[in-house]
Amino acid sequence: MLTLYYAPRTCALATRIALIDAGADYASKRLDFTKGEQRSADFLALNPKGRVPALATDRGLLTETTALLTYIAQSFPAARLAPLEDPFAMAQLQAFMSYLSSTVHVAHAHGPRGNRWSDDPAAIAAMKAYVPTAMTAALALIETQLPKGPFAMGDRYSVADPFLFTIAQWVEGDGVDPAAVPRIMAHRNMMAARPSVIRALSEDV
Amino acid sequence: MLTLYYAPRTCALATRIALIDAGADYASKRLDFTKGEQRSADFLALNPKGRVPALATDRGLLTETTALLTYIAQSFPAARLAPLEDPFAMAQLQAFMSYLSSTVHVAHAHGPRGNRWSDDPAAIAAMKAYVPTAMTAALALIETQLPKGPFAMGDRYSVADPFLFTIAQWVEGDGVDPAAVPRIMAHRNMMAARPSVIRALSEDV
Repeated sequence: MLTLYYAPRTCALATRIALIDAGADYASKRLDFTKGEQRSADFLALNPKGRVPALATDRGLLTETTALLTYIAQSFPAARLAPLEDPFAMAQLQAFMSYLSSTVHVAHAHGPRGNRWSDDPAAIAAMKAYVPTAMTAALALIETQLPKGPFAMGDRYSVADPFLFTIAQWVEGDGVDPAAVPRIMAHRNMMAARPSVIRALSEDV
Repeated sequence: MLTLYYAPRTCALATRIALIDAGADYASKRLDFTKGEQRSADFLALNPKGRVPALATDRGLLTETTALLTYIAQSFPAARLAPLEDPFAMAQLQAFMSYLSSTVHVAHAHGPRGNRWSDDPAAIAAMKAYVPTAMTAALALIETQLPKGPFAMGDRYSVADPFLFTIAQWVEGDGVDPAAVPRIMAHRNMMAARPSVIRALSEDV
């Protein structure tokens, strides 16, 4: 049994979509960030990072979206969620996901979580004000480098798609002009019509 | 043939160590960051991210340290640089590397590259001043969560070791007290004595 620890509207959504795509049997446990539950003693004992997503497995806890998505793809090979047989294609997939987590998600995080990188209120406010610029720049690289599609890695669906979709949820809230990222928006619209995504969004509350 | 694009004293060092560990045949091309060569038209045509490391392969260019390290481990299985046969252990390895790239490296980058997240000189200065605090916090989680060792993932050497070693090069420069991270420093000292690391450092100029 797998248990997904999540908070609504975080990147934990990507892992949930992948679990559904995989046909996995899973439970989920909601953390209320407004009450600081991710910093509670109970959760920190389970996950010292105090973040979501975290996935409890029979062998222990796993964290980090890129690792969880690859784990799900490898654990449910019949779902064909990654090009497991091809190290080069896997590296392209992992590079895409690494860019989403270490560049795009980080640009986004300077809005709500500037206190990770400064304790100066003026600096935190400046980071927040710059999120539209940083996010637009980070997404522009994806916009111009996306393959022909329809999926993030080309003609084959993969765990990169739930991850890109999840991050694309933040476009308007982060002050990015949707007209500047038409291919990302087209991908988002296509994903939003998939049954696994519809179900995941209904559970992400 | 593989060609590593690098700049000295960047996290490209981790990929170089792994290439040597793997017994790979590789060339390397140096970019002079002081001359902005990573933003030259020639390099941007090859790698639109304008960053290192980048690895040219017979099938195309790959980027992102976590993806490159996994690619090397998968392409040279005889070198046993990752637990390729075990999806759970692979996910632990990938979670560790993802944390290094999306949390630790990002904390470090707020020193030299604050202009990614603000255009306000005062905010950039504030981020830089906070690097010792953010890096100490980011490394503390590794310090307390490292397995018994001697290696980053336990009793078996993996591509996580060159990555941790590379980031540990920045401890003093980022204002982290080495006494606060004794296990990371012990790992660094152990790694510094390995022939592959000695060779990689001699080439990282």
